[in-house]
Amino acid sequence: MQNQNETVDIEILDTTLRDGAQSTGISFSLQDKLAVARTLDDLGIPWIEAGNPGSNPKDMEFFRLAQSLPLKHARLCAFGSTRKKGISAAEDPYLKTLLDTGAEAVAVFGKSWDFHVTEVLGASLEENLAMIAETIAYLKERGRIVLYDGEHFFDGWKANPSYALKTLEAALDAGADRIVLCDTNGGNFPDTISEGVCAAKGLGAVGIHAHNDADMASACSIAAVQAGARHVQGTLLGFGERCGNAALAAVIPSLELKLSLRSLPPGKLSGLSGASRRVAEIANVPVPERMPYIGNHAFSHKAGMHADAILKARHSFEHIDPALVGNDRHFLMSEVGGRAAIAERARKIDPAVTKDHPVTAELASRLKALEAEGWQFEGADGSFELLVRRALGKYRPLFKIDAYRVVSEHPGGDGIACCYAWVKVWVDGQKEIAAAEGRGPVNALDRALRKALNPFFYHFDIEKVRLSDYKVRVVEKAGGNDATAAKVRVLIESTDGAHTWSTVGVSEDIIDASRAALVDALEYKLISVIERRFKGLF
Amino acid sequence: MQNQNETVDIEILDTTLRDGAQSTGISFSLQDKLAVARTLDDLGIPWIEAGNPGSNPKDMEFFRLAQSLPLKHARLCAFGSTRKKGISAAEDPYLKTLLDTGAEAVAVFGKSWDFHVTEVLGASLEENLAMIAETIAYLKERGRIVLYDGEHFFDGWKANPSYALKTLEAALDAGADRIVLCDTNGGNFPDTISEGVCAAKGLGAVGIHAHNDADMASACSIAAVQAGARHVQGTLLGFGERCGNAALAAVIPSLELKLSLRSLPPGKLSGLSGASRRVAEIANVPVPERMPYIGNHAFSHKAGMHADAILKARHSFEHIDPALVGNDRHFLMSEVGGRAAIAERARKIDPAVTKDHPVTAELASRLKALEAEGWQFEGADGSFELLVRRALGKYRPLFKIDAYRVVSEHPGGDGIACCYAWVKVWVDGQKEIAAAEGRGPVNALDRALRKALNPFFYHFDIEKVRLSDYKVRVVEKAGGNDATAAKVRVLIESTDGAHTWSTVGVSEDIIDASRAALVDALEYKLISVIERRFKGLF
Repeated sequence: MQNQNETVDIEILDTTLRDGAQSTGISFSLQDKLAVARTLDDLGIPWIEAGNPGSNPKDMEFFRLAQSLPLKHARLCAFGSTRKKGISAAEDPYLKTLLDTGAEAVAVFGKSWDFHVTEVLGASLEENLAMIAETIAYLKERGRIVLYDGEHFFDGWKANPSYALKTLEAALDAGADRIVLCDTNGGNFPDTISEGVCAAKGLGAVGIHAHNDADMASACSIAAVQAGARHVQGTLLGFGERCGNAALAAVIPSLELKLSLRSLPPGKLSGLSGASRRVAEIANVPVPERMPYIGNHAFSHKAGMHADAILKARHSFEHIDPALVGNDRHFLMSEVGGRAAIAERARKIDPAVTKDHPVTAELASRLKALEAEGWQFEGADGSFELLVRRALGKYRPLFKIDAYRVVSEHPGGDGIACCYAWVKVWVDGQKEIAAAEGRGPVNALDRALRKALNPFFYHFDIEKVRLSDYKVRVVEKAGGNDATAAKVRVLIESTDGAHTWSTVGVSEDIIDASRAALVDALEYKLISVIERRFKGLF
Repeated sequence: MQNQNETVDIEILDTTLRDGAQSTGISFSLQDKLAVARTLDDLGIPWIEAGNPGSNPKDMEFFRLAQSLPLKHARLCAFGSTRKKGISAAEDPYLKTLLDTGAEAVAVFGKSWDFHVTEVLGASLEENLAMIAETIAYLKERGRIVLYDGEHFFDGWKANPSYALKTLEAALDAGADRIVLCDTNGGNFPDTISEGVCAAKGLGAVGIHAHNDADMASACSIAAVQAGARHVQGTLLGFGERCGNAALAAVIPSLELKLSLRSLPPGKLSGLSGASRRVAEIANVPVPERMPYIGNHAFSHKAGMHADAILKARHSFEHIDPALVGNDRHFLMSEVGGRAAIAERARKIDPAVTKDHPVTAELASRLKALEAEGWQFEGADGSFELLVRRALGKYRPLFKIDAYRVVSEHPGGDGIACCYAWVKVWVDGQKEIAAAEGRGPVNALDRALRKALNPFFYHFDIEKVRLSDYKVRVVEKAGGNDATAAKVRVLIESTDGAHTWSTVGVSEDIIDASRAALVDALEYKLISVIERRFKGLF
């Protein structure tokens, strides 16, 4: 089932577009689905389970359009269930729908837990076996690669092991190419998974489909492989119903780096972080910061002791080299951070900076002073980089806000609450003034500021920058008497689609703190564009 | 080490306040730390590792204040390292600091990986053993319960098993009460954890401290228990450096419900979801929606098929009953656990409310609608009480804001940023208008509102009310395109010195969301004063 030049040890199936699309809060448009498929293909994922055309008619349109996708690595799989009870496979319109997708492979789920057969399906145990066998035979006769997904296999195997295994045998006897053991409710532990795989692996080619309801989907997937499974299903970011499916962004590097089992084509693993961020971007959800291997914080170090040790010996506090999965080491600038960590970050701007460089000492003392005022740079890489530039003399203000006014009023002109802002900026001796309305005062200020900058920085990509997260926190009680008069810290995450950066602002006034973080966000972006375009000129 | 009436099978240590405080983006104030400790104690957690006073001087103040916390279940543990090389334990100021905390227990970490001893610490293997032994003996002589945390134990055990075990023996021989095996880099799989625990458990009482860098912290903790560990460390929500520590909110129910091993006092498990949300609220981070057991989506069902099946047989698509951990099935708001909780809270206003009272159903459906819009009443008891009063007909608006305007401008009249607000209120058919300046727009609005109300509610104690905390969170991306235009939820905590209450407001406009929470806060206070003074009149 693999391209000949891409022999892998473990076959991966990503079901972001099918099981992942059942996540609460995740909703893919047709264009989104095509973009996810291209991203997974670029990463080298060999199988994409792309939809359930029987229950979701829009998925049929995806399969039609996907035929013209220039996929380099991935093959498509359509998903459905065994035939309905009481009719023949040929009479079941849903099976015909599966064939109509044109997908090379078809996954059909059937009941492997006797309780589900009798109580939920309302069929006899024998009829269920016939449903499995006839469905698979029907699809095989029509030339498809067929996967049998044994729903609730592990619960079934605990309740009635011989019947659970019979369902797999029925599938294999009818020609199934893979028997996929599903922990549908996600509540089993790796030891049960291991035992179930061992019991089934003598029958045929075994796969695993784990859910994360007991926080063990990765461990269960790995345990299945260790027990003999050679096909692993999951979703890149762990999207999926309830607690989600096994997150392939964690399973794949565990297979490749810890068990030396290849699951992606050579050279593709370092694309993992980028592909994960791209899928998150398409789904419009953040990548969880603490997500193993690929999260923004997966290799960040706050404790000064750890940061020091890493600079002495990289593997001392890191389980893998982050570059292997395309991620990055982040040192956190916090009360417990050290000079070594500061120097490491400053070297991104100027490679000559060392732990003992005077600029490092200056930065350390500046950070300490700012942190005492409530600033925090550990989650604000963009603002930190600007701070480093200032200390290195590699900074000049690209614009200056001369004045602004933000008004929130209720009722506004149209009878409901409204916000508007005007802002005056100076750029290189020239003045521009702009005004905008917004949903909320910060949104109004953000829009007005971009409008004012646009004549100066037209086509500098600031129109692409959007704020992807906005957090506010009270950081200091002013005299302990009034939280609305306390200092607030605003943390803004911005993205231009390709990169994400964070900036921070602190003030007694939430609007002014937001202004500071917005200014940093735009300056950071402008500097990166200017560097890219003009660096050779200096 | 347990209260006699609280015998458990597995001893839990929560390190949210120590390892968890090293999470990127997590920053606890002293008041936050005390609130976390109270929450963990209410949940019945027996041990709280509360800080590292040697590296973070602010933690010492916590221990001082914590002595007057009325803890019912929890004991405190201070964290530090073995003595520095080349000096005696008595000469090490950090060890004295640990004793000065007054904490009943002390955890000291030492090097169990030979590579770390020689390459990072720069000590001989023998000297490291002496450091461990002398440190523990010193602390034991001074009457403390002592935990030895074997840093990198599993990596050490793979590299040099006999030395790794020697470090544990040195600790035990010196009197350590627990040897805690740490997977410090978080990269090990459950099979390695299992083998390491088996190798160590003959020596003494073994504990496990797992990190989530390979997405297996829960599985590793459970594997350790299955191999014989009886002490489990983690953080309630999985906070911690990099990918975080083992999430106790997942480990505890796995122990109790899957392995029948008690780790909380009887009756406490159903407090798990509430406690987790409270800690998240204090840390000002959302509980991940897909978080196992306690996440908002952990028991939500999108697929109609699954929802149907659940109505036929509850365990068909659920690995546990969500009520056991105080969570809720989310496709049904009228669920028994939910109503019982609502009725219980409504009885504070009207003792006649039961689970089956029509007002309970009405409240359930009102809550569901508000939650869909981003409101959340878990951390907003004041607003929830007003909601109950409305449903019971025991509410009348005490004042109405007719209009307001808030202005933030830079520069203001005196050349720096300034904010001012005016507000018009109606009370009992009479109008009052007032204006005020403030540090920040919310402070200006708050002051103007009190000024306007003062003539009507003079000596009603609203002048005593002050805002003790103010938190903002983005709750929904409007169109997914711009976080500054997303809905924000403002949570305000108010106090009059004697009592503390929380209120919530949601809007696209942060000022309007703050206005809603401020109004609830003042109404809540006014109602309590009116009840106290005038109740007999009705």
